[in-house]
Amino acid sequence: MSEVKAYGAKKESANLESMKIERRDFTNDDVEIEILYCGVCHSDIHQVQNDWGGSKYPVVPGHEIIGKVTAIGKDVSNFNEGDLVGVGCMVDSCQTCESCKNDLEQFCENGATMTYNGEDKHLGGHTFGGYSEKVVVNKEFVLSVPENIDAAAAAPLLCAGITTWSPLKTWGVKEGDKVGVIGLGGLGHMGIKFAHALKAETVMITTSKSKTEDAKSLGADSVLISKDEDAMKEHKGTFDFLLNTIPVGHDVNPYLELLKVDATMVLVGAIEPLKDVHGGNLILGRKRMAGSLIGGIKETQEMLDFCGEHNITCDVEMIDMQDINTAFDRIKDSDVKYRFVIDMKSLKES
Amino acid sequence: MSEVKAYGAKKESANLESMKIERRDFTNDDVEIEILYCGVCHSDIHQVQNDWGGSKYPVVPGHEIIGKVTAIGKDVSNFNEGDLVGVGCMVDSCQTCESCKNDLEQFCENGATMTYNGEDKHLGGHTFGGYSEKVVVNKEFVLSVPENIDAAAAAPLLCAGITTWSPLKTWGVKEGDKVGVIGLGGLGHMGIKFAHALKAETVMITTSKSKTEDAKSLGADSVLISKDEDAMKEHKGTFDFLLNTIPVGHDVNPYLELLKVDATMVLVGAIEPLKDVHGGNLILGRKRMAGSLIGGIKETQEMLDFCGEHNITCDVEMIDMQDINTAFDRIKDSDVKYRFVIDMKSLKES
Repeated sequence: MSEVKAYGAKKESANLESMKIERRDFTNDDVEIEILYCGVCHSDIHQVQNDWGGSKYPVVPGHEIIGKVTAIGKDVSNFNEGDLVGVGCMVDSCQTCESCKNDLEQFCENGATMTYNGEDKHLGGHTFGGYSEKVVVNKEFVLSVPENIDAAAAAPLLCAGITTWSPLKTWGVKEGDKVGVIGLGGLGHMGIKFAHALKAETVMITTSKSKTEDAKSLGADSVLISKDEDAMKEHKGTFDFLLNTIPVGHDVNPYLELLKVDATMVLVGAIEPLKDVHGGNLILGRKRMAGSLIGGIKETQEMLDFCGEHNITCDVEMIDMQDINTAFDRIKDSDVKYRFVIDMKSLKES
Repeated sequence: MSEVKAYGAKKESANLESMKIERRDFTNDDVEIEILYCGVCHSDIHQVQNDWGGSKYPVVPGHEIIGKVTAIGKDVSNFNEGDLVGVGCMVDSCQTCESCKNDLEQFCENGATMTYNGEDKHLGGHTFGGYSEKVVVNKEFVLSVPENIDAAAAAPLLCAGITTWSPLKTWGVKEGDKVGVIGLGGLGHMGIKFAHALKAETVMITTSKSKTEDAKSLGADSVLISKDEDAMKEHKGTFDFLLNTIPVGHDVNPYLELLKVDATMVLVGAIEPLKDVHGGNLILGRKRMAGSLIGGIKETQEMLDFCGEHNITCDVEMIDMQDINTAFDRIKDSDVKYRFVIDMKSLKES
């Protein structure tokens, strides 16, 4: 055991303070990573506040991690010291169940170990995330980050990126498809970039006309204002795919009406009740509503490779570790374009 | 024009009376059919009562039609006089749009012509259904009925049959899959028969323990009582596919929890709001909820051929035309196993 400086919440509150916590023991299959950057995801706030229940304190959040390999276990052959790597939402899974064999570790039947607030099944205790100097991760959950993209702006790819990439690939979005991205936040802005890069006709669907210019600069071909009933009618039955990033319960019916026959809307944000989904909106037109949760490790690597080839990163605002409470407040107010990333140098300096 | 005796409702009520209505003109592409049997579908009641709005009186219901060809237009080569044929929910569509070209006439972009209460786009007026002596239908919408199956019991295949067959085929249900059929009525009993014939492990899911023996005799391998919370927990995450035949709005969440990762529940009955579908039940497990509406003509023929090969028909109770109001009342009380079929000889005798 060694000590690593990390930021976390000790009590059921969002008051964070600097502390020393013990790093997990280093096994032969582990990779030790010095963290350079860590993105700030809305779920960090939920976990710190124990909104979902089950938070184990101290919570050290952070699952959008970019860093350099500083040590490898003796059975690690896929990474070397000095490699630029990433760690996303998971750090371990059973590797033997049907989901793991199908490269869907996020649905591990024995429960994937989440990067923070997860049960460490090998060494006991719970896991600590990326608001920290270092992290130790099983080699199967370490990702190669292309050297040509901005490392800090790549951090949110590990969660916001894969969360939006995975459904586009699962449902086979291709050149020429008409794709709507609903909601322009951390997830939505990546949905637009990916749909555009996949050469889909990309439509930003938002309640807010003020987001039009931003959406277009991110790659949207056009913007559909969901409160404009005439515009919604005009687009009725014309979408091949909808990526719904709205993070709270909402009325999905107006969006389902936008789908073509056999087309699909995928939810990635709303882990909440959706009010009165009308069965007719699915039956008449044989439409589909599905969910999607991050992505498997293989798919995450494919996404990172695609980002390297297409020079895609996230739009980020850099902060110091000491600014985290302000950042949390601004995220709650939707006041960030589009993701905060912590420069971990600031932790060392504190 | 000629006159055909038919049963229909003249006013906004379910009071039916015998009347004479004019048959549509006979075109070169038409097939004239003497109706032998016609199934009674719950939607017949909805249309007669104008529950969905838009009913045009007189309504002559009936879209589960079995009959003999009595005349063919000069451009008809796929049928001959004397053939045993069926007509389902549609009698025409544009044949040129993308949906029609994809054998999905039910989603014709220009609007399929429904068998009754539909707008006749060639000759004007509205269409009259199968509670009648004869019907004239475009050759593309006439189906061949295998001679080896009971013709009367085949009638409901044209609606209840294809409605349950289509989603099983669309979603690739295959041997060994664990398939749940939710709800045991006219649709559900066909869902069980088809899932069983496709060699799936077929589970009847019902609120009512009293339906156990019937479900097993129809081909269910086992019965899951949805009110039994322990049993539901035991089956959680184990189903490859769910066919939900419940005809009214309901809480779908307990059923979604039964699905495996990536598995699908298809709604075929509930053209109504579904209370508070929880987004987490789709996102966590990447599950899918879809709709399905009858089926295309090609698929309906495939279903009928499959029924011929596997000797599948519906479980029916035969009635005379004069018993229709009692039958409607009994359908409303769910008091039929599992479909009424009208013997049209009774109409001639009246």
